Amino acid sequence: MTDVEDDARETTATEQVVTPWDVEGKDGGGIDYDKLVRDFGCSTIDREMIERVERVTGRKAHPFLRRGMFFAHRELDLILDAYERGEKFYLYTGRGPSSESLHLGHLIPFQFTKWLQDAFKVPLVIQLTDDEKFLWKDLSLEECGRLARENAKDIIACGFDPKRTFIFSDVQYMSTPFYKNMMKIAKCVTLNQVKGIFGFTGESNIGQVGFPPTQAAPSFPDCFPHMFGESKTSLRCLIPCAIDQDPYFRMTRDVAPRIGGYKPALIESRFFPALKGESGKMSASDATSAIYVTDTPKEIKTKVNKYAFSGGQLTVEDHRRLGGNLDTDISWKWLNFFLDDDQALAEIGEEYSSGRMLSGEIKAKLIETLVPICQGHQDARAKVTDAMIDEFMSTKPRVFASLFGDMGDVAGALDEATIANTKPGIAIGAPEDTGSVKKEQDKAQTGEDGGQMSKSQQKKLLKEQQIAEKKRAKEAAKAAGQAQ
Amino acid sequence: MTDVEDDARETTATEQVVTPWDVEGKDGGGIDYDKLVRDFGCSTIDREMIERVERVTGRKAHPFLRRGMFFAHRELDLILDAYERGEKFYLYTGRGPSSESLHLGHLIPFQFTKWLQDAFKVPLVIQLTDDEKFLWKDLSLEECGRLARENAKDIIACGFDPKRTFIFSDVQYMSTPFYKNMMKIAKCVTLNQVKGIFGFTGESNIGQVGFPPTQAAPSFPDCFPHMFGESKTSLRCLIPCAIDQDPYFRMTRDVAPRIGGYKPALIESRFFPALKGESGKMSASDATSAIYVTDTPKEIKTKVNKYAFSGGQLTVEDHRRLGGNLDTDISWKWLNFFLDDDQALAEIGEEYSSGRMLSGEIKAKLIETLVPICQGHQDARAKVTDAMIDEFMSTKPRVFASLFGDMGDVAGALDEATIANTKPGIAIGAPEDTGSVKKEQDKAQTGEDGGQMSKSQQKKLLKEQQIAEKKRAKEAAKAAGQAQ
Repeated sequence: MTDVEDDARETTATEQVVTPWDVEGKDGGGIDYDKLVRDFGCSTIDREMIERVERVTGRKAHPFLRRGMFFAHRELDLILDAYERGEKFYLYTGRGPSSESLHLGHLIPFQFTKWLQDAFKVPLVIQLTDDEKFLWKDLSLEECGRLARENAKDIIACGFDPKRTFIFSDVQYMSTPFYKNMMKIAKCVTLNQVKGIFGFTGESNIGQVGFPPTQAAPSFPDCFPHMFGESKTSLRCLIPCAIDQDPYFRMTRDVAPRIGGYKPALIESRFFPALKGESGKMSASDATSAIYVTDTPKEIKTKVNKYAFSGGQLTVEDHRRLGGNLDTDISWKWLNFFLDDDQALAEIGEEYSSGRMLSGEIKAKLIETLVPICQGHQDARAKVTDAMIDEFMSTKPRVFASLFGDMGDVAGALDEATIANTKPGIAIGAPEDTGSVKKEQDKAQTGEDGGQMSKSQQKKLLKEQQIAEKKRAKEAAKAAGQAQ
Repeated sequence: MTDVEDDARETTATEQVVTPWDVEGKDGGGIDYDKLVRDFGCSTIDREMIERVERVTGRKAHPFLRRGMFFAHRELDLILDAYERGEKFYLYTGRGPSSESLHLGHLIPFQFTKWLQDAFKVPLVIQLTDDEKFLWKDLSLEECGRLARENAKDIIACGFDPKRTFIFSDVQYMSTPFYKNMMKIAKCVTLNQVKGIFGFTGESNIGQVGFPPTQAAPSFPDCFPHMFGESKTSLRCLIPCAIDQDPYFRMTRDVAPRIGGYKPALIESRFFPALKGESGKMSASDATSAIYVTDTPKEIKTKVNKYAFSGGQLTVEDHRRLGGNLDTDISWKWLNFFLDDDQALAEIGEEYSSGRMLSGEIKAKLIETLVPICQGHQDARAKVTDAMIDEFMSTKPRVFASLFGDMGDVAGALDEATIANTKPGIAIGAPEDTGSVKKEQDKAQTGEDGGQMSKSQQKKLLKEQQIAEKKRAKEAAKAAGQAQ
């Protein structure tokens, strides 16, 4: 078909574009997530998988998971299989530090990651891509570094466990083990491939072209010898992120087997809708399209009342008769993210869609939900000291076993001989690199690590693990009972 | 003109190609160095400049310089101007560690660099690009790292001063200050630019595309805070290298002012001719085209006699009548590199070109020149211990002033307070980064460095510098007298 009308339409129509730097729906409309999942080749998270997460962790799923904000995955099932077999994994997430203060959407991956860390009792690495922001934005490297540290405060304020969490800036952490993984990945990816995946052009700077391996590398545990030792297969990796980051990890998963690592698993979120409504481009630079975590109760109230896109009808009469439109109402959508109480949420939905609740009233519900969240974040952030940031960013070797399960106190129990026998800069008791995946995991399981621990220490570890295992099984049984 | 013959010729003819990975003359012939200088936009080194080097250093020029092996430069005159004003500079050279043992051609930049270091009494950094070799060759990163350390032994065997020299592998040294410079450079260079300069294609891996800033970065002194402090303008940089590396530094020089650094100066060599003759492609993998520094006297004798391309005539009668052709004879060319004695060399040239000396005889002269060079290198290399390699590769902070002139003993003279006041990891007494080039250099001059040295220490440094200056002036005057 080549008729004139069709041609004319084609020149004004735009396809859906989702890259780490651009998110735009078809013809400027909303994102078609089903299409995204098909195009990207990931899988949707179904009810069964959510229930399995609850069973395995013994916890009710986080609202972001049970309400479908984290809606897609890659091999999350394999992570759960491995976890049930007693194999270990770690979490990896990150942020590009391009602005001073975060908006509520920025908190989402971190809040969910904190839940995953608590539920699975696993270690976490958080990458701050100050190099990326420098390469893409009109900012100095020094300014990006400063923003990275500022953003680290917001991340720490989310309540991560300092014993299990390592926050790093690419520029500050850049080191041999990290760079080795970057090089190994970079060798496996051609210029044509990154042009296809990321849309680089001849005018892209070569820092940008060379950047994808830098975000890919932390998917491999030997980037962090002070946490996970020097074995590429000491741990599997699970990455919670927004789905626009999928291209990076599609690339990483292609490369992983070629460099001897596990493919990282992913759990991916939808985009957080802008205050002004879900259609059109979300703009971080438009202060009226977002609530910042630094906003005062008054600012929150003003912004929600003034800018939050309403699915309500134009007149009270129409509204009472037709009800609010839950598909477009931002207050309703945001409440789905931030209102923890399922019953209260269901009631608001019922009231609003039936027309009994007015637009101003659902906005008031949102305001009273957001104010304590922002206030709480501000209080927590104010308590973050420089010493705390330094602790989260420290490359001092950790005790490998203490990063998992209920083993938090194992560090104090280590005898001096064990610590003295450890390789400098390498996590104490981390699995050694023998090239055999299975063997590694058996070792990791038992805390046996090539004689670096004393016999009595091994016994103690094993016993603690058994207690933790029993506790977990009991909690899981309890949760399974509740779910029925 | 579009006649058929011309077209046919064009399809078989090849243009001269010189990149860091490919060196090939037009139509498979020798390299046209005049064209190269024109194409690259560098300058040739003339007699006047060689004499100026001799005057400034108070030394007779190295054979590689006075015989035109190092034949081209970029802003060497500015380095000499600055040096005469008392400003400081450092040398930067390197090697891609892709083979176990070096051939004689590999030694040339290092032998010349050692002469420069001794003559100017300046510090030197030597980059081993194990990452580059990994990205371009079918070698593991670990193997490239091993080769880097093996090659470091050969480099150390050239006799560099450990107090003034830092040898590093990219992978092992990768760190914040190095990476910062890489990123700043990478942001200034587009994909189109590196395609044009280096000939990258869609099938190039993104490690290769991202590599040029890694070789560019050491041109800036703040890559090495333990030697030169944290100021980008604490020192100028002079790079001795083969001319095929020029593209890297053309790029670096373009970028330098945009990131606040000096443009590095260059002194560039011709290619070392292959044993089998200068035309055609030089192949490092063809063992018969090179003499290795590990070759025994017997191997050297056999290779030279069997493979060294001869400019001699086909019969003794013709040779006596017509003489040897110095333009093609490899023994003659190699003697020009390695026979130090100008008079002996002139005599050989005269005897051989007149036909009095036969091809076998000039080969004998070459063999007796090369055997002690290789033997000497092997002896020196055998004495290189692991501890010595570690010392050359150590990032322990150096005393800035001790890297220059006759200040070798200044480290011992530092008082404890000075050392205690120094920033960890930063060269003791290095100029601070104030953003003002001139100010920096005045400080560097006097050893004044923002109060990190005591008054008495400053006086001592100044006095020592004055003595060194006088000595240098005296030697220069003497050398100038000799040159007339």
